[in-house]
Amino acid sequence: MRVTIKDIARAAGVSHTTVSRALRGSEEIRPETRARIQAIAEAMGYRPNPVARALQGRRTQTLGVVVTRLSDPFHTEVVQGIEMVAQARGYGILLSLSHEDPEKERAIVELLAAKQVDGIIVAASRLGSRYLPMLEALRIPIVLINSHQTGPYIYSVATDNVHGGYLAAAYLIRLGHRAIAYIGSRRGGRSNQDRYRGYRQALREAGLSVRPEWIVKGDGRVEGGEAAMRRLLEADPRPTAVFCYNDLTAIGALKAALRAGLRVPGDLSIIGFDGLEEGTYVTPTLTTVAQPRRQLGRLAAEMLLEILEGRPSPKHILLQGTLIERESCGPPL
Amino acid sequence: MRVTIKDIARAAGVSHTTVSRALRGSEEIRPETRARIQAIAEAMGYRPNPVARALQGRRTQTLGVVVTRLSDPFHTEVVQGIEMVAQARGYGILLSLSHEDPEKERAIVELLAAKQVDGIIVAASRLGSRYLPMLEALRIPIVLINSHQTGPYIYSVATDNVHGGYLAAAYLIRLGHRAIAYIGSRRGGRSNQDRYRGYRQALREAGLSVRPEWIVKGDGRVEGGEAAMRRLLEADPRPTAVFCYNDLTAIGALKAALRAGLRVPGDLSIIGFDGLEEGTYVTPTLTTVAQPRRQLGRLAAEMLLEILEGRPSPKHILLQGTLIERESCGPPL
Repeated sequence: MRVTIKDIARAAGVSHTTVSRALRGSEEIRPETRARIQAIAEAMGYRPNPVARALQGRRTQTLGVVVTRLSDPFHTEVVQGIEMVAQARGYGILLSLSHEDPEKERAIVELLAAKQVDGIIVAASRLGSRYLPMLEALRIPIVLINSHQTGPYIYSVATDNVHGGYLAAAYLIRLGHRAIAYIGSRRGGRSNQDRYRGYRQALREAGLSVRPEWIVKGDGRVEGGEAAMRRLLEADPRPTAVFCYNDLTAIGALKAALRAGLRVPGDLSIIGFDGLEEGTYVTPTLTTVAQPRRQLGRLAAEMLLEILEGRPSPKHILLQGTLIERESCGPPL
Repeated sequence: MRVTIKDIARAAGVSHTTVSRALRGSEEIRPETRARIQAIAEAMGYRPNPVARALQGRRTQTLGVVVTRLSDPFHTEVVQGIEMVAQARGYGILLSLSHEDPEKERAIVELLAAKQVDGIIVAASRLGSRYLPMLEALRIPIVLINSHQTGPYIYSVATDNVHGGYLAAAYLIRLGHRAIAYIGSRRGGRSNQDRYRGYRQALREAGLSVRPEWIVKGDGRVEGGEAAMRRLLEADPRPTAVFCYNDLTAIGALKAALRAGLRVPGDLSIIGFDGLEEGTYVTPTLTTVAQPRRQLGRLAAEMLLEILEGRPSPKHILLQGTLIERESCGPPL
């Protein structure tokens, strides 16, 4: 029989929460109480599941990885980064697709746990805070990529979206643009808000105003970007530059602009976000703020292995994107 | 060495039938005996034969799917097709990446088998005929997508590449082209040969000759298509149309043509193969021979479930591609 937190709580005469906190080394519990509970836990042979398995050498040497969908090219390099680390450490990887559906994501994490993976990495989670009760029940470490949730048991690696949005807008301002639009994503959630905030901040610092008709929304995909750009082209005055929520949106915006007979970047500069390979397929190639995707994957895998091996690990890592200058931006004519 | 029911029967000193029943949780065996036999089986590392388990209704309800790499957009819809069928029948899916590396593919299939998936679907296998001895050892049904291997234990669903190549070239001929080039793929193997054969056949039937300098090779990716097109543009006489091994090659060819100042399709018609979403990102959008990718996935999953359920199943299914007319082809000027 495995000793649970409940058993320890009963033995120590304290609440379940107190035991959890004490075992985590939380500052909210007095040092003496913490020491007493840790001693009881040790005496009862308690070890948190995944770590215990690791220490006992009964690891399955397999990591579960959850991405939203195969058609989202964002995940390609993230998974490559995870694979690099996993392979070097002798771990196999099992992937699964959440389709951005919280219920599906939950089912998949449970499937992976049932398949006895040692730990799980979830990219672009839709469950967010609802993971908490699950994580306690599953007793398997999970690292989230690009989720900005915090809380006990939650580890994450993410890109700084405010900084990225600022970088994109500041670049357009440096090129001489004064009329800069934003095509957001109605499915982008927190990352959309943060990129927008960074954009606003750069404009504010430059003393530029934003017209409401210059803020439109796509859906994070090519079709949505195309439709949003068509609306934007009717604005009067028309912006001379557009920052897009992501590269797929920017590819759609570029299609619509070329179709309307505009020269890019002559008549209109377009900048994306993500740094996808697909941005090099189009003519002109797409200037973008690249997320360090491979690094996101690499750091998430390293964090997970540190947790599994009982080594100290940071709980949250925030990375910055970098500007990739290609051909779709230039000074306004 | 795989532990069999016989081994467990010997170790427990009971009959083969008793072990089978005990492992199935049958009420015919006394609870203590059942527990003892199950403990012995576990200690010996017994893993039930998945097909037997399936027939006994103890299926794990999980299918393994192996694709070459996430960055290959070909797989997106294939996996969607597999997921549709799996979901409707209550199966989960575990994905894994082979990176077109036969050794990695073998390791992954073994990992999936160890994770007790009921069956495996492998897209674009690089192991091919070397699966034979493995399949006997793993005792798990495997369905290959777009592999043209045959042999015992091998089930497959594939696209008819000769027909597809014929379709592409015949379309260009119908538009009035007489000088039609082919950009193949040095990494395309049998599918490259077959698409080339179909192309040759269409040209032969139309009484057209092929100049050796019109046959060049890319690598199945955008960069390779770009480089191949640059070589093709130096040919004299220059072709008026190009059939490309796949859409990524065609996207690269289009980039190089636009960069050289050619109008597409005015000066040069370009047709791809696959029917990728990415072909709609570029301007002009890419005309292509679409593989029935979702159907490939759907049929592979149905075939696998039929095998698992002991129902009669075809061993090989060959599907035909269809022409998608977009904007990159027109009559020669």
